Amino acid sequence: MDITVAIDAMGGDHGPHVTVPAALDALKRDDNINIVLVGLTEAIEAELKAHKAKVGPRLRIHHASEVVTMDESPQSAMKNKKDSSMRVAINLVKSGEANACVSAGNTGALMATARFVLKTLPGIDRPAIAATLPTQHGVVYMLDLGANADCTPEHLLQFAIMGAMLVSCVEHKERPSVGLLNIGSEDIKGNEVVKQAGELLRASHLNFYGNVEGNDIYKGTTDLIVCDGFVGNVALKTSEGLAQMMSRFLTQEFKRNWFTKLMALCAMPVLKAFKRRVDPRRYNGASFLGLRGIVVKSHGGADRIAFDNAIQSAVAESRSGVLRRITEQLEIEHIKPPSASFDLDGTTVTQEAPA
Amino acid sequence: MDITVAIDAMGGDHGPHVTVPAALDALKRDDNINIVLVGLTEAIEAELKAHKAKVGPRLRIHHASEVVTMDESPQSAMKNKKDSSMRVAINLVKSGEANACVSAGNTGALMATARFVLKTLPGIDRPAIAATLPTQHGVVYMLDLGANADCTPEHLLQFAIMGAMLVSCVEHKERPSVGLLNIGSEDIKGNEVVKQAGELLRASHLNFYGNVEGNDIYKGTTDLIVCDGFVGNVALKTSEGLAQMMSRFLTQEFKRNWFTKLMALCAMPVLKAFKRRVDPRRYNGASFLGLRGIVVKSHGGADRIAFDNAIQSAVAESRSGVLRRITEQLEIEHIKPPSASFDLDGTTVTQEAPA
Repeated sequence: MDITVAIDAMGGDHGPHVTVPAALDALKRDDNINIVLVGLTEAIEAELKAHKAKVGPRLRIHHASEVVTMDESPQSAMKNKKDSSMRVAINLVKSGEANACVSAGNTGALMATARFVLKTLPGIDRPAIAATLPTQHGVVYMLDLGANADCTPEHLLQFAIMGAMLVSCVEHKERPSVGLLNIGSEDIKGNEVVKQAGELLRASHLNFYGNVEGNDIYKGTTDLIVCDGFVGNVALKTSEGLAQMMSRFLTQEFKRNWFTKLMALCAMPVLKAFKRRVDPRRYNGASFLGLRGIVVKSHGGADRIAFDNAIQSAVAESRSGVLRRITEQLEIEHIKPPSASFDLDGTTVTQEAPA
Repeated sequence: MDITVAIDAMGGDHGPHVTVPAALDALKRDDNINIVLVGLTEAIEAELKAHKAKVGPRLRIHHASEVVTMDESPQSAMKNKKDSSMRVAINLVKSGEANACVSAGNTGALMATARFVLKTLPGIDRPAIAATLPTQHGVVYMLDLGANADCTPEHLLQFAIMGAMLVSCVEHKERPSVGLLNIGSEDIKGNEVVKQAGELLRASHLNFYGNVEGNDIYKGTTDLIVCDGFVGNVALKTSEGLAQMMSRFLTQEFKRNWFTKLMALCAMPVLKAFKRRVDPRRYNGASFLGLRGIVVKSHGGADRIAFDNAIQSAVAESRSGVLRRITEQLEIEHIKPPSASFDLDGTTVTQEAPA
């Protein structure tokens, strides 16, 4: 099946300078995808020209006159920028013109807009942010990474269902193991929300491994790790900070004097191989799970390679049929759709039936 | 002032094989400390003999007939092991025979016993675990690292006061900066508890920097970072896991073939310097803050060097006068002592007046 990806071409720290060449790379690699570049036509055309590329049957431009800035509040983006590249790209998913949307724009605005335009899946209270992290043996999926700072046990169960179906569909694992992030392996450990979430998970039809601890993330103890958005975000950013510090220390030690610089030169191939293995660009592209459409968030500072990885994630998710699988699993777990209307930024929105 | 440290000689994965030689190292380095080794006399004497050492005016043995195992529940340790090396070492702090106690025994049992025997300082609801972590510029203190999974905003304020006084006394910083661990820098970010804790901290007399994020830990943005024990424990263990994975990847890359092994040999001095910089043994020794006495917890798997570092932490804390400073700061912040009695494991304990 051909997949069409709508790209918020203006999003991120570098806008079209990164999104356009990354889109061209993606088109070159995969013959079965089409791309719609959404944003200021002039800026996108200039970037295409710089790469000697043109629009065609597989690549088109969809004009959007506004840009959501990186520090803009979700409220301002929603109210004042109805023709932003971010919103128009999401609209294309809603209308069915695109299978997925990718944006490196600001997380809060993207989540609020995606939730407002696409709505949540029936049975899901709140969307969550899921991403992959490297482990000693491969990768682990983890959610929520920051969308929901306060969670109930029921939210954590919903995250587990969504995450498990994502791993199942994208990684083709029949029954992925699910770990609950905690501060000890015994059932009685943790805060009240996590203890109750453990009970819900034990009673579910998921392949629940039990509690895991922070060090289990990189050990790869389970295929999926579930936590609230506060803890997930802290774990993710702590990891970023530690990796940066360790890289910096290593560089400093190799640059200490002419002798150590010579050592660095000798060890270069090995250091490069090491860097490739922990390169965060390989893990760029977080899924907003729980929406009635596929939205992938790239890191704001992503370069061409990293943004291309986010496009690949969106394509893989589109091909996987994960939205249907989540809906089916929610039914298996007897999770009923939430009340027919919900409140977003003060406006009561009536939910539509699932597409 | 001479400092006397009571050491739970039987605690940790290695017991006297580690605690006794580490104690001998500490005595050699610092002429103004005395050590009491608490535990099974025979086992301690055998270890002293193996190191050609003897008891004397600065080193004595205090017999304790029982040992708390590493996986024993706090309840079992408290009820059934009243003559354990852990408990007797804490008793020596209570009676004033020692200024501080160091144990590598199990965290839950040590915290429960220390709290039961020593009681909390007036105004402190719950003790917290504080430790130092390396940063790009030096060290950062962080608490709570796992004692309290569910916290109120008031608890976080108490942690901030205790931590700030520890940094002030041990690092001789007049007004250490205090960061509140959160998932965004703006005041409106975070979960409900953290938002309210932010308000309390802004209203306090501490040098409150504001919110910090996970990556700020290793950036060294502030002198102290405050969080609940769930988040702190996850951040700490996630760091352990990532550091282990990165070290393992580096080793694997250098061991890939004969060529890379040669590279490793060349780069050895640099790699060793790097390893020294991130050596977790240098940061071993977590303080149980908020008790009416000084208790330092060593990592269970600590070796001689790591355990010696924990002893050094206990000595520095004893010399610093931190307990008095915490009490004074609580008064400045108008934090009243809690109700006269508290409940521990089903037994109502009447609090005594502070020593």
